[in-house]
Amino acid sequence: MSVTFAQGFSAAGIEAGISAAGKKDLALVVNNGPLDAAAGVFTPNRFCAAPVVWSRAAVSDGHIKSVILNSGGANACTGEAGYAQSKATAETVAGLLGCDADDVAVCSTGLIGELLPLDRVLDGAKAAHAALASTEQAGADASQAIMTTDTKPKTVELTGSTGFKIGGMVKGSGMIAPQLATMLCVITTDAVVSAGQLQAALAVATEHSFNRIDVDGCMSTNDTVLLLASGASGVEPDSDEFNKLVSQACASLARQIIGDGEGASHDIKITVTGATTEEAALACGRAVAASNLLKCAISGNDPNWGRIVSSLGTVPPDVAPYDVEKVTVDVNGVRICEHAGAGRDRSEVDMTPREVCIDIDLNAGEAEATVWTDDLTHEYVHINADYES
Amino acid sequence: MSVTFAQGFSAAGIEAGISAAGKKDLALVVNNGPLDAAAGVFTPNRFCAAPVVWSRAAVSDGHIKSVILNSGGANACTGEAGYAQSKATAETVAGLLGCDADDVAVCSTGLIGELLPLDRVLDGAKAAHAALASTEQAGADASQAIMTTDTKPKTVELTGSTGFKIGGMVKGSGMIAPQLATMLCVITTDAVVSAGQLQAALAVATEHSFNRIDVDGCMSTNDTVLLLASGASGVEPDSDEFNKLVSQACASLARQIIGDGEGASHDIKITVTGATTEEAALACGRAVAASNLLKCAISGNDPNWGRIVSSLGTVPPDVAPYDVEKVTVDVNGVRICEHAGAGRDRSEVDMTPREVCIDIDLNAGEAEATVWTDDLTHEYVHINADYES
Repeated sequence: MSVTFAQGFSAAGIEAGISAAGKKDLALVVNNGPLDAAAGVFTPNRFCAAPVVWSRAAVSDGHIKSVILNSGGANACTGEAGYAQSKATAETVAGLLGCDADDVAVCSTGLIGELLPLDRVLDGAKAAHAALASTEQAGADASQAIMTTDTKPKTVELTGSTGFKIGGMVKGSGMIAPQLATMLCVITTDAVVSAGQLQAALAVATEHSFNRIDVDGCMSTNDTVLLLASGASGVEPDSDEFNKLVSQACASLARQIIGDGEGASHDIKITVTGATTEEAALACGRAVAASNLLKCAISGNDPNWGRIVSSLGTVPPDVAPYDVEKVTVDVNGVRICEHAGAGRDRSEVDMTPREVCIDIDLNAGEAEATVWTDDLTHEYVHINADYES
Repeated sequence: MSVTFAQGFSAAGIEAGISAAGKKDLALVVNNGPLDAAAGVFTPNRFCAAPVVWSRAAVSDGHIKSVILNSGGANACTGEAGYAQSKATAETVAGLLGCDADDVAVCSTGLIGELLPLDRVLDGAKAAHAALASTEQAGADASQAIMTTDTKPKTVELTGSTGFKIGGMVKGSGMIAPQLATMLCVITTDAVVSAGQLQAALAVATEHSFNRIDVDGCMSTNDTVLLLASGASGVEPDSDEFNKLVSQACASLARQIIGDGEGASHDIKITVTGATTEEAALACGRAVAASNLLKCAISGNDPNWGRIVSSLGTVPPDVAPYDVEKVTVDVNGVRICEHAGAGRDRSEVDMTPREVCIDIDLNAGEAEATVWTDDLTHEYVHINADYES
């Protein structure tokens, strides 16, 4: 279903010959209104890609009619020629839809540093436009067209208590780090909401979802999250419920990214409790999530708490005050570290589930935060070292 | 030669049965004077090991007569019992040498979270004391006894223009990150220098050597660098030359750690020039050195500049001001990125040498810094995932 789950949206996903993988590689999402409210969040990477520059400006007035997305090339670090490609793509879509080019957002993902085969993108835009539909299949096609090293499409569908709907799709598997990830995400809703409401909901939702996952610590040049509202349901949602559902949609999509992390054999959920502030909890969680040694140990099914506390110990005391003697670490419910030393024997930890829960209690306060990462496997190295360049 | 290169030092390296690997695992270094000046630098990890707590206090008065080092166990996160082991070890050595226990430094490396087999350590101390010699072989034995996943011993020997000597040994291969590394290092000199001079020389030297290497971003609990002066040469060195040689010794040992990084197939030298400040250059270099994606690409012999600039782009502008359009990136002398886009074709880069030089010019100022890392290989994952736990 993905982006066509909410009323007022059509979509398509087609094979345009952009990706060398010979798969669907171009998606089009169109908001058929009556509203065209939109909000966006983008990578803070200073080497951000041409489509990010274009789309950030396009969404700045709170209105987007359509999003065109391609896999098979990031159009990043491609200079003025790359920007001209994003602009031409938006203009082509605008011509097909009869709207302004700055009502069209553009998203690209793939290799950095190469221009796109523009003819194929523009021909693809026309073919996608011809294929637009509001069906379940059309939404599914779009979610497949944006995949790169993803092994499966990632979508979400939620319904509010008053009948409004939220649907979404995301791609992302590697180059995933806090401050977004190499991910493109489009979420649609048929609720009657303003651009300001959308932006507020999206800011909170991304902060607690996409900004708390880390596959490999590598921030992308192309990250884009767009939230579009058609108003087609006619329902003005309760704003708390709407915000909560947008957060739930982002959390679900972020969780799916972790579940499909490049080469991963375990998803690692790191919850830090008992911190003095949420920032302190987050800093501790991120430090643990960034440890290659821990990620390797987990891939070898070893709940190596020494690698957990040695990462925790790198967070400066002014960032996260705690007493090392009071910290406890549980892995999958077994307290294997306490009093800065060994607790129960780590052989008691069942490491067979894909999801590994690391619960760290700093015993210093009341704040907490959760971050997600993947283990580091032979397959991750294989994907990122032995690729065809 | 290592620590016995300078006059006034004896050493031993023996098999004490501490390490499961069945290798030399206990080293003893003794300063026979006439001076016993010493300086030390230790891990800032908050979960620092018992021997670090002991040795930091021991060296704080500027005097150390002897250092005992073991592989086969880190004695980290072992609580009061672990501290008692470090203390008992120092007391045993002190009894053998007829000095105070707080003139004996203790260093341990190996698995975190387990106590040492203390009887073997203490028996080993006696055997090592009996084997003490000032020969080349004795120094070599000591440098072998501290190895863990190291594939070769790492030593340095330098002679000043006025005849004083500096020798040293280090171990370290994984859990290597800025702010020291999982490394134990003992450097000896026969120069006539004060503890204050030693500390000043060592602080500068470690900042520009061990603090600028990063195998896997993981900070250890046990890092220790000790610098001992016997004064046995009778030479009072020029202080500039002495500082320079200590820096050179540390740089050589740090370079050897990178050359023996766990599983590494390439050593990566990242030099950032044209920065507004050295801190800015360093922040950029560290960001690039921390990229798993780049490290995988290099192991696959791909000079993937997209992964270089996407890492560079994560450094906030207030930390390192630069204009992305002006940044250039050379890999092994080939300018493959300029004007935030592709430069010469990356197929022109010869990736066959083990050493890969990444030269980044920010074109924003005059400051520069160099950091070192290793590539990320299947073998790294194998070493850190498939070990016997």
